[in-house]
Amino acid sequence: MSASKPSGKVLLAITGFNPQQWMQLLSARRNVVLEPDGPADPSIDYAVVWKQRPRILEKLPNLKAIFSVGAGVDHLLTDPGLPQVPIVRVVADNLTQYMTEYVTWRVLDHHRQGAFYRTQQARRTWYEPPQPPASEVSVGIMGLGNLGRASAKALLALGFKVNGWSRTQQEMDGVTCYAGASGLTPFLNATDILVVLLPYTPATHGIIDYSVLKRLRRDNGLGGAFLINAGRGRLQKEADILRALEDGTLKEASLDVFEQEPLPKTSPLWDHPRVFVTPHAAATSDPAHLVGPMLDQMDAHDRGEPLRNLVDRDAGY
Amino acid sequence: MSASKPSGKVLLAITGFNPQQWMQLLSARRNVVLEPDGPADPSIDYAVVWKQRPRILEKLPNLKAIFSVGAGVDHLLTDPGLPQVPIVRVVADNLTQYMTEYVTWRVLDHHRQGAFYRTQQARRTWYEPPQPPASEVSVGIMGLGNLGRASAKALLALGFKVNGWSRTQQEMDGVTCYAGASGLTPFLNATDILVVLLPYTPATHGIIDYSVLKRLRRDNGLGGAFLINAGRGRLQKEADILRALEDGTLKEASLDVFEQEPLPKTSPLWDHPRVFVTPHAAATSDPAHLVGPMLDQMDAHDRGEPLRNLVDRDAGY
Ligand SMILES: NC(=O)c1ccc[n+]([C@@H]2O[C@H](COP(=O)([O-])OP(=O)(O)OC[C@H]3O[C@@H](n4cnc5c(N)ncnc54)[C@H](OP(=O)(O)O)[C@@H]3O)[C@@H](O)[C@H]2O)c1
Ligand SMILES: NC(=O)c1ccc[n+]([C@@H]2O[C@H](COP(=O)([O-])OP(=O)(O)OC[C@H]3O[C@@H](n4cnc5c(N)ncnc54)[C@H](OP(=O)(O)O)[C@@H]3O)[C@@H](O)[C@H]2O)c1
Repeated sequence: MSASKPSGKVLLAITGFNPQQWMQLLSARRNVVLEPDGPADPSIDYAVVWKQRPRILEKLPNLKAIFSVGAGVDHLLTDPGLPQVPIVRVVADNLTQYMTEYVTWRVLDHHRQGAFYRTQQARRTWYEPPQPPASEVSVGIMGLGNLGRASAKALLALGFKVNGWSRTQQEMDGVTCYAGASGLTPFLNATDILVVLLPYTPATHGIIDYSVLKRLRRDNGLGGAFLINAGRGRLQKEADILRALEDGTLKEASLDVFEQEPLPKTSPLWDHPRVFVTPHAAATSDPAHLVGPMLDQMDAHDRGEPLRNLVDRDAGY
Repeated sequence: MSASKPSGKVLLAITGFNPQQWMQLLSARRNVVLEPDGPADPSIDYAVVWKQRPRILEKLPNLKAIFSVGAGVDHLLTDPGLPQVPIVRVVADNLTQYMTEYVTWRVLDHHRQGAFYRTQQARRTWYEPPQPPASEVSVGIMGLGNLGRASAKALLALGFKVNGWSRTQQEMDGVTCYAGASGLTPFLNATDILVVLLPYTPATHGIIDYSVLKRLRRDNGLGGAFLINAGRGRLQKEADILRALEDGTLKEASLDVFEQEPLPKTSPLWDHPRVFVTPHAAATSDPAHLVGPMLDQMDAHDRGEPLRNLVDRDAGY
């Protein structure tokens, strides 16, 4: 392949993790650089980014499109020097599968009382608490996009009742769909286990606050309401989550994302007995699965075909 | 309804738990007694049992069928005075749903490294270990009956590879099926996470021993092999499971059933850091869901229709 690499280069602009594997896989079919040759480097036609250094893309005269390494694009939209080229985000089976596993796992661990059983085991107690079947439990998914829909499908197959909430009205077989500000309260009132799969945008900033948690259903067979956030950390107000856990508004929470990441050592979430912490690991972007489709999109675009999975900048996702 | 109750009575012969709810629900449509009126009580035509007192059914002259309160019938077949009448076992959506939840939950907790993350959280460590997707992990189900098949279906939907092992050769879309003694080694060699849903019979007594665990695959992305037993306790040799956990043959185990139940306070399984204990709670027989179909079967049998879900006494399940 390398004999026929296109002349234009790919700028790999990643901060926060090692770009090595991305570099290696992208290099199989394109020339890749980690820095432009000056701010107005004319040789760069695509950028692959994760939290790129601000303004690094601003003046590249021949940049045709920006590819986000993740499904979310909040990490790149804050750049004040973001040029007006199309932004492509990740939609991939591998990522969707990881998220579906994570959501199903956390819903089942709350539903089947994992925390209760682990505590009881430590006391060597043999006791079976009442257990409603999934068919009597409602999972409400905030964000009924690619990941929300896949998670809904898996939960329906296990017998859960599923509600969904989105910006525009969606439809999905078996799912009770709510939308927008007016749909939020009825959605929450009908939900025992809340799963957050929203993108982070100005409209969703801090949306998971005390008043949202308060509206969840807790007169259920599970003895309370549950929160699972695998969207973004700044969707949630951690002080409100802690307050809700303390006063019984929330029974347990599984959090994969946090207002500040890595979660500071001083956070009380670490050792809260009813909080389960994972390090933004619900659905990791695996270059082995994502680079091929990314390169295919660049080739297709070079042939004049349209890009897929484009971000709507006005909506912010 | 009570005005038209049939004249024959139902004997409710339960030990080990309170029969009250069963009594109440059965009484809505049949006359129910907890003891026969003498060993040869001619008024009893059906028995509903869980670990009945030995010989209590032996001489009832008009007994037409025995209904097991559970899906397994090992608890009743050991009775030396068991009369030669048909035995009906439980096959019900509610029970199947509970078991599917349990199996999916435990598979996901091992697959997604729940024990690792809980330990790491206690140390306030932010670290993401390598994580294979479900599509690279094989779950092997011993016992591809009603519960095994339903669990296989749920795991396939989540993307796992699934193997099955049964007494007679079975077929199921998407599942690699093995059978009998000659199929056991290839089945185990292809399995990362072993799920046991066998009935307890003379042929399956103590089948989960060190040699079975040794044959599991452990050169996988999960760093070891896993055992989940939700069948019966006497399928397993607990000393062998502990040995396998100690020497690395097994990475973790989820056990719902035990050689002796309740699990004795002195058992080292209770505080083993890589064992998860539940108190035979994977799929509880809920009378609210099971009594109706049981009564329907009695009515159908009285009308001369055949009984369903009959036990094969020679096979022992
Ligand atoms: N933790 C992790 O490892 C991880 C990994 C990957 C992704 N993520 C997060 O998951 C998010 C979702 O990914 P996706 O691929 O499913 O995104 P998506 O396909 O763009 O779906 C986003 C959904 O959120 C809804 N939404 C957006 N703004 C909203 C608002 N203001 N009010 C109500 N609903 C709103 C959208 O509504 P409409 O249907 O009306 O457009 C849509 O249903 C990503 O943005 C990222 O933050 C996390
Ligand atoms: N933990 C709990 O809460 C709980 C709750 C309910 C049930 N259970 C247990 O789950 C068991 C399975 O229930 P089910 O309804 O799925 O039973 P089932 O429909 O009778 O299926 C039994 C399966 O085991 C296989 N099998 C039996 N003997 C075997 C042997 N010697 N070698 C290999 N395979 C053998 C059968 O093979 P064939 O297909 O060839 O017949 C069949 O596939 C019950 O017997 C009970 O012990 C536990």
